[in-house]
Amino acid sequence: MRSVSIIGVGLTSFGEHWGKSFRELIAEAGILAIAGCNLEGKDIEAIYGGCMASGRFIGQEHIGALIADQLGVTPIPATRVEAACASGGVALRSGYLAVASGAHDIVAVGGIEKMTEVSTEQAGFALGGAGDQETELFHGATFPSLYALMARKHMKEFGTTEEQMAACAVKNHKNALLNPNAQFHREVSIEDVMKSGYVASPLKLLDCSPITDGAAAVILCETKKARKLCKNPVEIIASTQASDSLALTGRKSLTEMLATKIAAKQAYEHAKLKPKDIDFAEVHDCFTIAEIFAIEDLGFFKKGEGGKATEAGKTGLNGEIPINTSGGLKGKGHPVGATGVAQAVEAFLQLNNAAEKRQVKNANIGLTHNVGGSGATAVVHIYKKIGGKK
Amino acid sequence: MRSVSIIGVGLTSFGEHWGKSFRELIAEAGILAIAGCNLEGKDIEAIYGGCMASGRFIGQEHIGALIADQLGVTPIPATRVEAACASGGVALRSGYLAVASGAHDIVAVGGIEKMTEVSTEQAGFALGGAGDQETELFHGATFPSLYALMARKHMKEFGTTEEQMAACAVKNHKNALLNPNAQFHREVSIEDVMKSGYVASPLKLLDCSPITDGAAAVILCETKKARKLCKNPVEIIASTQASDSLALTGRKSLTEMLATKIAAKQAYEHAKLKPKDIDFAEVHDCFTIAEIFAIEDLGFFKKGEGGKATEAGKTGLNGEIPINTSGGLKGKGHPVGATGVAQAVEAFLQLNNAAEKRQVKNANIGLTHNVGGSGATAVVHIYKKIGGKK
Repeated sequence: MRSVSIIGVGLTSFGEHWGKSFRELIAEAGILAIAGCNLEGKDIEAIYGGCMASGRFIGQEHIGALIADQLGVTPIPATRVEAACASGGVALRSGYLAVASGAHDIVAVGGIEKMTEVSTEQAGFALGGAGDQETELFHGATFPSLYALMARKHMKEFGTTEEQMAACAVKNHKNALLNPNAQFHREVSIEDVMKSGYVASPLKLLDCSPITDGAAAVILCETKKARKLCKNPVEIIASTQASDSLALTGRKSLTEMLATKIAAKQAYEHAKLKPKDIDFAEVHDCFTIAEIFAIEDLGFFKKGEGGKATEAGKTGLNGEIPINTSGGLKGKGHPVGATGVAQAVEAFLQLNNAAEKRQVKNANIGLTHNVGGSGATAVVHIYKKIGGKK
Repeated sequence: MRSVSIIGVGLTSFGEHWGKSFRELIAEAGILAIAGCNLEGKDIEAIYGGCMASGRFIGQEHIGALIADQLGVTPIPATRVEAACASGGVALRSGYLAVASGAHDIVAVGGIEKMTEVSTEQAGFALGGAGDQETELFHGATFPSLYALMARKHMKEFGTTEEQMAACAVKNHKNALLNPNAQFHREVSIEDVMKSGYVASPLKLLDCSPITDGAAAVILCETKKARKLCKNPVEIIASTQASDSLALTGRKSLTEMLATKIAAKQAYEHAKLKPKDIDFAEVHDCFTIAEIFAIEDLGFFKKGEGGKATEAGKTGLNGEIPINTSGGLKGKGHPVGATGVAQAVEAFLQLNNAAEKRQVKNANIGLTHNVGGSGATAVVHIYKKIGGKK
């Protein structure tokens, strides 16, 4: 398999886009990414688009062709992939495989969700499709309630506190303040989080990522070609994906995500790296407890230590391992199909010293981690700064 | 890129499955395919699942993980791909690329749709998501009406008649009689089709493929390994995909499908074959007029000659080029996400001399053609009989 690098990225602002349609958002991100590496539409050989639930959000399927059409790049192959909230990460891996295989040299990967066209209740139902409709959602479980069960178990087993979870939200809102594309530009305190209403105890409103419109895109290129085309390619040195039971009831443990652990193990092996070699990571914090799971399951902290580490500031911008410098799903926003691709955008910016006020010093290796549902899909990518043309 | 072969296939019966759920159907097809080549679940390294609109049909997304979970093969990577009614074909191509790339040696590709859980009206809306929601469906265009426009134009330009379209339905129902898994086991006459009520003039009820539940699966394997594992592998000698405008209004011509023509041209080039080398084909006859488009755009007949050729019996089981020996979407049924994979199942059976009463004599090369929407995605695969272990 060939080496693959990112040579350009594009991101819309995340938030409530009443004035922009689904297709305008994905086109904006796509054009930014293509123009960002001085390419033109005709240079793109294939498209992979991550999108979770466009059928229920905007009554539209056939998203691959829609993106190609909107970007004016037909007749190239254009494919939508879906893996709930990991749709973006799986799209990135699909594009990666298409280039690694030799089938294509330059591929655009997009991620998109337009979630505000329906009521919050309808959005809840649509998002519920990420879990097990038959054994969970049909019986009244909401998505926050599934994560609340995991949070309770983690609290019971390891003494994790609501304040420690709140510390994730506080940090991510703080980082989001430094990200012009983030949905929230508002600092919150531990007290604010603790005072916010319960959505599904112990998870409160400010423990939950928001409903978001937004799109992200990256341009992938075979690495030799990437070095010629671009000053600052970022090599993808691992791309792994794992699955687990759709429903929580099928899990051996409720205090870890096995799919994350397996995908991470394979990614570290592939990249010949260890968790301590990672300089920063974007992880899947759909709820604050999910960030605590992630930083443990990715090996940055021992199981049960994630809450304490967060409370102690170890995951802050200047901490041991900066987590979610972009603001994460909590602060930047979570347009579900876009999230996995937006994480790669942040990794590219950090490794190009282009993350402005939220820049991690001496960042050479980054990791992104995208989860579908309550953990039935996990995708891990590791990125490395490499040199390109002068 | 490495050579890829099909080593096992599985198909559920197509029809209205009131007694089987979505997950039971896909598990049935998957287990048949895995057992058919004497493998076990643990031998499968990745899953690609084609499914169009499970969110709107059964309130469930995250279909890749669902399939892996239901088959008991977690934690392997499991990905859903969607390209409207071409979802199955695109899943097949995604699995093909995963094996061709060297990322995996053995991959399962599934296709599934459970369409009868909602009312026919709701199914119509869900299927409408294959077209352009903003410029077509929102304004009242139904899917049959889009194909009706194309049919009218073809009739005007080439003198194609309603009786010629009816001849597609008559042939496909006749072939379906010989396929135990087909939805319809009922011969229809030209007169029956002509007398059936208009759905969108000139298309009548018996010009339209039905609402169907069903699933299909194939096991892909790197060809050298396939020859060792299996007596009768079928090599995929071309796998191509093209896109076009989502809406009809963006097309240069309404009497051809450009995506089909481009995917076919690339497939013939890749396989170093010409249309006359193909011994049989499964083509996308969601409406009878679509079969006429397909046999012209795939190069089997000159543009404008498809209707006459069908009427003259040239596409019958013993004709010049047997088309849709399985019964096609019209006679076998059209569970949208499953269709592209089910076409590959038929190709495998034909090339293994296992198609029983509908067997094409001396079949060595087969072709499948899967379309998304009104032609915004087209996928073409070409298959060749090769020898395996004795």
